[in-house]
Amino acid sequence: MSSAPSVSYSITVRLEAPAHGSAVSQLTTLVESSGGSVTGLDVTASGHERLRIDVTIAAASTAHSEEIVEKLRTVDGVVIGKVSDRTFLMHLGGKIEMAAKHPIRNRDDLSMVYTPGVARVCMAIAQNPDDARRLTIKRNSVAVVTDGSAVLGLGNIGPKAALPVMEGKAALFKRFAGIDAWPICLDTQDTDGIVEAVKAIAPGFAGINLEDISAPRCFEIEERLREALDIPVFHDDQHGTAIVVLAALTNALRVVGKEIGDVRVVMSGAGAAGTAILKLLLAAGVRHAVVADVHGVVHREREDLKEHNSTLRWIAENTNPDGVTGTLKDAVHGADVFIGVSAPNVIGAEEAAGMADDAIIFALANPDPEIDPVTARQHAAVVATGRSDFPNQINNVLVFPGIFRGLLDAQSTTVNTEMMLAAARALASVVHDDQLNANYIIPSVFHPEVAQVVAAAVREAAQASGAATTAKSVGMSTVTGDGGGTPHA
Amino acid sequence: MSSAPSVSYSITVRLEAPAHGSAVSQLTTLVESSGGSVTGLDVTASGHERLRIDVTIAAASTAHSEEIVEKLRTVDGVVIGKVSDRTFLMHLGGKIEMAAKHPIRNRDDLSMVYTPGVARVCMAIAQNPDDARRLTIKRNSVAVVTDGSAVLGLGNIGPKAALPVMEGKAALFKRFAGIDAWPICLDTQDTDGIVEAVKAIAPGFAGINLEDISAPRCFEIEERLREALDIPVFHDDQHGTAIVVLAALTNALRVVGKEIGDVRVVMSGAGAAGTAILKLLLAAGVRHAVVADVHGVVHREREDLKEHNSTLRWIAENTNPDGVTGTLKDAVHGADVFIGVSAPNVIGAEEAAGMADDAIIFALANPDPEIDPVTARQHAAVVATGRSDFPNQINNVLVFPGIFRGLLDAQSTTVNTEMMLAAARALASVVHDDQLNANYIIPSVFHPEVAQVVAAAVREAAQASGAATTAKSVGMSTVTGDGGGTPHA
Repeated sequence: MSSAPSVSYSITVRLEAPAHGSAVSQLTTLVESSGGSVTGLDVTASGHERLRIDVTIAAASTAHSEEIVEKLRTVDGVVIGKVSDRTFLMHLGGKIEMAAKHPIRNRDDLSMVYTPGVARVCMAIAQNPDDARRLTIKRNSVAVVTDGSAVLGLGNIGPKAALPVMEGKAALFKRFAGIDAWPICLDTQDTDGIVEAVKAIAPGFAGINLEDISAPRCFEIEERLREALDIPVFHDDQHGTAIVVLAALTNALRVVGKEIGDVRVVMSGAGAAGTAILKLLLAAGVRHAVVADVHGVVHREREDLKEHNSTLRWIAENTNPDGVTGTLKDAVHGADVFIGVSAPNVIGAEEAAGMADDAIIFALANPDPEIDPVTARQHAAVVATGRSDFPNQINNVLVFPGIFRGLLDAQSTTVNTEMMLAAARALASVVHDDQLNANYIIPSVFHPEVAQVVAAAVREAAQASGAATTAKSVGMSTVTGDGGGTPHA
Repeated sequence: MSSAPSVSYSITVRLEAPAHGSAVSQLTTLVESSGGSVTGLDVTASGHERLRIDVTIAAASTAHSEEIVEKLRTVDGVVIGKVSDRTFLMHLGGKIEMAAKHPIRNRDDLSMVYTPGVARVCMAIAQNPDDARRLTIKRNSVAVVTDGSAVLGLGNIGPKAALPVMEGKAALFKRFAGIDAWPICLDTQDTDGIVEAVKAIAPGFAGINLEDISAPRCFEIEERLREALDIPVFHDDQHGTAIVVLAALTNALRVVGKEIGDVRVVMSGAGAAGTAILKLLLAAGVRHAVVADVHGVVHREREDLKEHNSTLRWIAENTNPDGVTGTLKDAVHGADVFIGVSAPNVIGAEEAAGMADDAIIFALANPDPEIDPVTARQHAAVVATGRSDFPNQINNVLVFPGIFRGLLDAQSTTVNTEMMLAAARALASVVHDDQLNANYIIPSVFHPEVAQVVAAAVREAAQASGAATTAKSVGMSTVTGDGGGTPHA
């Protein structure tokens, strides 16, 4: 399933070839016949006899790109030079930077941006700490915090190796919501250490985005930070995923004409994302939910439950009202909805076929889903995955920029279930009735309205729940420039 | 001494005035006669009868600007509208932001900046953690860390109120050295808490700039962080000041033709800056130094010394070889050099006159120096202050951008005395022999060569001392884009 050439495995091969004859066309033919794709061909130097060409090739994997290069070496008259990797090139020196908003050209500029002028601004904030939201970057800043313990599907690779993901996340915050995020990669995986570090750095930020912290520590860390801090703390791997799933499920149910309170939902996976999805689905009105982990269906009588963490006990007490036991495959039989956030290929064609009519399957394990999506689609009415090469991609980028934009605009002190439900409803509403179908239950991450629609809903929910410290939307344009102690009419 | 109109107390007054007659000229005359200065006059709307004008006025203080506005109200036919403060306007929403280096236009961009492409970069760093310096922002990032306990001369105003200073510092890092700095304002003033928080956030940064942390905690915090971390930790209030002072003293001694090993130096102030200056002067070859604090000259027999912190004991043991006792004023008699980092007006004309011939006075307390600089200049050959409105301003901006640029380029694991001495020598060398005189011992902060000359010297010193982890200067242009596991010729 991962054999299509992709730009994320794109290389640029600098080579020399004869200026005449068929060498160049041989090269492109060879790339295509090897399963690669030529996405760019730039002649960077030309002479009577020889050309220097940069050929950019999308391959399916690193091994595949190596294979293609080896084949290119066999073309007569072609000399392969430097091969560079476009993804790595893009990462050189990092993907983000700090920029000053005002030029510092002379002594006058310096005396306002820095001393002595800055002292008056400091004193204004000292006298009224809430002014930090007005006169500093706090207003628009989010810390993207990780300990590197559960990065993408790569596992515990540590804080330095996690940095490229956090930089990418910061870039997405800016791209989709105009938020200034900065990566904070922690050199501790101790729960207390993480809580203390995040508490310590909080004054300069208006929100904390926890990222790629492994379960079950992530539950306690988030809970303790929410209690301790006066800014929202949001573990995106949990709640971002949950909100997108709920939005997608809302629209999938619109497609098949079922009600959320009636459907039987079976979930595979009780980790960070699975637990958050479950809790949000219950809050949204799901009444019949069954969860399975690697040991089978979670129920109150399960022998191993006493050894497990409190999250699993919570699941046992709040799901599976009929006391279903057995394996995941047993449970899926007759279910209306399958949601997988677990491992590749835990169910097959047989289980998909055994679900209720007009079944919905969300197979979100990445890159290899719980069931082959093509197979799933043969039996289910609606299928979604985490992959970008199938319809209905469940992608957190649909939510985290907008939810933080809303929280920041409301100057919210927290993030709660009502706000998450509002975000899911808003995201679902972006797909209008006349657009909705089984292959379009969720908009593209590049849909231009997503972030602002989600932000508006979250801001309103924050105001409605009393968590907002501002009564209306605050944009730069609505803020006046009067300083403390300054005369104004 | 602070009555000159300054742009850091600049306001913009929006007003309406009759289009005809002398109202506008009356307005400007009134501002000037009130001691203000009209720095801009923009007609923003005009009709047959009335003009709307934005008048920008530099005043000497907030009270002064209020006075001027009240006077403007008395002009016949003039209606005063909104009065805004330029310095506050500049701070609205903060002075810095995060920027992404690459556009995210489509799915292809997304798949390289973020998942799935980013995973390969993460794995390359997981396999070789040193690659974080190549493939992430770590290479060029500095954390500007404060607890808000000693901000400018404002005292313990806390982390939020300190943020405008840290943002300004970050903007200066970029302006003068191309460094990406981000403010980290800590919600703890506990030594252990600060040390743990900075250790925790270190993986994402290539250097730590400690800022505005009060003594004596700053000494222990810096020392413990230097031991714990593999990146340089630099308390700018201490060492930045010390380096600029040494550079200025080096050139002042060139002016008067004295040798650093021969001069008698008397210092007023034994705080963070004073102690750092003293240590660097001793390292640079000063042999005759005497330090005074509020209790008088520091000497080994002083009664109160047992109660004091170890820094003061260190001073007693390493200065004052002749066992001078008494007051600061006593000690200054006959001294070649006075360096004040203490309080306003601790010496006067009499003490300045009693110094050795061709005396040097650095009166660095801000905004009011240890001695009026005009008075000082009547008796001393060379005078420097911390103020921007006298010659020879001792300003940390001359050092911190260049020293961190050098440390980052060398990928230095630490910062040591040799590097600081090299920075001071380099800074002094920017003033050439044919430029040197009593009113120009130190270049302007806008001198175009300062940061790069300091950076080069620090980089070389880091390489010479074995602290550099790169053998040569690393710029983006010298780095190749080969990723781990990628084929290259």
